Amino acid sequence: MTTLQECRTRDAQDPLRSLRDHFSLPEGVIYLDGNSLGALPRATPARVAQVVQQEWGQDLITSWNKAGWVSLPQRLGNQFAPWIGAGPDQVVFTDTTSVNLYKVLSAAARVARADHPGRTQLVSERSNFPTDLYIAQSVCQEYGLELVLVEPEEIATRLTPQVAVLLLTHVNYRTGAMHDMAAVTAQAHAHGILCVWDLCHSAGAVPVHLLDANADYAVGCSYKYLNGGPGAPAFVWVHPRLADRPGATFAQPLSGWFGHAAPFAFTPDYQPAPGIARYLCGTQPIVSLSALQCGLDIFTAAEPLGGMAALRAKSLALTDLFIALVEEHCAGHGLELATPRDHAARGSQVCLTRGEGLGVQGVGSGAYAIVQALIARGVVGDFRKGDGGKHLDILRFGFTPLYVGFEDVWNAVQHLRQVLESGEWRKPEFNHLNAVT
Amino acid sequence: MTTLQECRTRDAQDPLRSLRDHFSLPEGVIYLDGNSLGALPRATPARVAQVVQQEWGQDLITSWNKAGWVSLPQRLGNQFAPWIGAGPDQVVFTDTTSVNLYKVLSAAARVARADHPGRTQLVSERSNFPTDLYIAQSVCQEYGLELVLVEPEEIATRLTPQVAVLLLTHVNYRTGAMHDMAAVTAQAHAHGILCVWDLCHSAGAVPVHLLDANADYAVGCSYKYLNGGPGAPAFVWVHPRLADRPGATFAQPLSGWFGHAAPFAFTPDYQPAPGIARYLCGTQPIVSLSALQCGLDIFTAAEPLGGMAALRAKSLALTDLFIALVEEHCAGHGLELATPRDHAARGSQVCLTRGEGLGVQGVGSGAYAIVQALIARGVVGDFRKGDGGKHLDILRFGFTPLYVGFEDVWNAVQHLRQVLESGEWRKPEFNHLNAVT
Repeated sequence: MTTLQECRTRDAQDPLRSLRDHFSLPEGVIYLDGNSLGALPRATPARVAQVVQQEWGQDLITSWNKAGWVSLPQRLGNQFAPWIGAGPDQVVFTDTTSVNLYKVLSAAARVARADHPGRTQLVSERSNFPTDLYIAQSVCQEYGLELVLVEPEEIATRLTPQVAVLLLTHVNYRTGAMHDMAAVTAQAHAHGILCVWDLCHSAGAVPVHLLDANADYAVGCSYKYLNGGPGAPAFVWVHPRLADRPGATFAQPLSGWFGHAAPFAFTPDYQPAPGIARYLCGTQPIVSLSALQCGLDIFTAAEPLGGMAALRAKSLALTDLFIALVEEHCAGHGLELATPRDHAARGSQVCLTRGEGLGVQGVGSGAYAIVQALIARGVVGDFRKGDGGKHLDILRFGFTPLYVGFEDVWNAVQHLRQVLESGEWRKPEFNHLNAVT
Repeated sequence: MTTLQECRTRDAQDPLRSLRDHFSLPEGVIYLDGNSLGALPRATPARVAQVVQQEWGQDLITSWNKAGWVSLPQRLGNQFAPWIGAGPDQVVFTDTTSVNLYKVLSAAARVARADHPGRTQLVSERSNFPTDLYIAQSVCQEYGLELVLVEPEEIATRLTPQVAVLLLTHVNYRTGAMHDMAAVTAQAHAHGILCVWDLCHSAGAVPVHLLDANADYAVGCSYKYLNGGPGAPAFVWVHPRLADRPGATFAQPLSGWFGHAAPFAFTPDYQPAPGIARYLCGTQPIVSLSALQCGLDIFTAAEPLGGMAALRAKSLALTDLFIALVEEHCAGHGLELATPRDHAARGSQVCLTRGEGLGVQGVGSGAYAIVQALIARGVVGDFRKGDGGKHLDILRFGFTPLYVGFEDVWNAVQHLRQVLESGEWRKPEFNHLNAVT
């Protein structure tokens, strides 16, 4: 049985504790939704003001060179690359996850068509984040592939020589379950299948070793664990053996001027830039990109404190603690653990399910209402609706080791216990399912 | 012969004069590059600070609904739609011009393939902005079309039943020459050709009547005349007869979740949203989008002062004055007018050429050096390199009627005269062509 005092002791001994001071969090809030929108770094407002007032307002167009706007996607990519096991000049921050996924899936489909003509399938998980499946549908339509959706336990048996591309999200957004990237990639490669990894719930949250895993393509967002701000530009990584593949056929289809070998030569013919730069397209939102840098700077500050190994150790300690405390303090209220107990298969979030029929009449499981009641108490998690079948309603809690502490976990569980024991989640104001986003 | 006093009188009588106070321009600068990067609205820093510190920092994920982040692309689109002759719910601000162009060119290619199978060409202008041609190349490769590049005077004769899509930039970035959108669209439609218009140098600068012209698709950027900030999100408009065309085949290929009919239902199948919303894709950069609103608000403030008719009248008066003063005060230095004198064919910029061989040894025409010498004096225009053939080096000066005045024009021309007469442009520091962007 863990006590509040033990939680405080763990916070006091936490080597990453000082990183919390890099964030500006609202008073009285325990923020367990950094896997949806990361918190505001303290440095961001001043940096954004500088970009807007000085670089834009005073220096105007000269800032494209003088302030380095033109290379911001690359500079941020290089700053963050080590955190996903990528090399220099292999990552750019640009556009959105959906757009970047379109680029890499298209590129993969082209490579597969050239190297393994006749392959007919693009395999992904049925519970993948929907936008990934929507983009995959479009790419399948364009390249004459069939989109085959499978359950996670079926993946290994569905990797056959019919498959051109495997698209997986490393950490599942609903359950927090994590794939073994190296093992799955090796299985896929054994059948000549290209692997595309979505790192939205991994980047900055769990160790990722793209080069070591020998992955082919990866994308991810920066507004979750990277704390880049709402809708901050996403990233894209491509293994150099594929990024540099010669011939316009193997460039990605969004062939805008920022991905040109000589963007300011203004020549009428598209010539893809070497390497990852060809995955750039149009002019990027500089204010949003600049804000992102403050989020990445906190990772740089975490390096001398132990880097990703320390972040991962704390993340697992936080999620272990949350699981143990929920099971100890909230038993008997129908909550079940949806996230793997196995550390190797767990991301940085804990998801709980609640059986259908446990809620108040007409609103299903009560999971939505419980989340709303917690938010009213200042404990911010989120709710993901079930599909009425295998996937139940989910209460989702993200644990960002940069700013969540052990006492936060204790307090969050006490609030959850009180919400459940008092029955306050049954109040009508917490049961408006239409308000769900 | 116009005098300085007359310029001052015109400023004093300018009904739009008060709009200049909505901008924060650097001291001592005459900014004639708003066609590259618009100036900073005074309201933007506070708005951005509010979004960052309150909406993100304090209200966190609740701002997606509470602050209306989720509908920002549509709300900004509706605010600006009247300025391009579009109706409500027909415009969204999102992504980049290049990405939006890819969406609409792909959609047009799909419609053409269905309605006029066998058409083989996509026609554009050889001097179109390069990224437009690069994107067109990619779309042509995907849809089996030939990209045919022509000179502006050839367009009419090249509109044949072989042509699927015509892609034109309304106002040319190099010369400031403007097409007659209604006339060209009617010519194209007479042959069953779909028209895609790039409004990057038109939106907010010249009258645009998309619905009246019966255009099919349009895109444009917001960091030039709309003063949205560096890399601010672009816009896309599609005629309702095409945007609502049923069937997934006619949706654009970047099928991300924000373009889904029910983005938060998290269903695995893509169902395009009705109308222009299906041209959204991923999660948008909220900080950059919010900054853009301050630029659009100045257009709203311009409405009671005469709206686009007043802006256009002033823009033509400014460019007329600049042309007249250059010809009067700067004669004999090899400058030629590249922008049409005909009002109906002129955008909101004036471009001058300078013959090859007039510069100092080894740096061509001297146009680059003259622009650099002007910038050193606080007169900011820009330089566009020639192609060594028909297209000469260009000195480009944009006249934004929101913040440029008649005395500014007088002073700019006096600086140009002094730069030319004194020969200061010949100084080595102004002749580093490699520094050009």
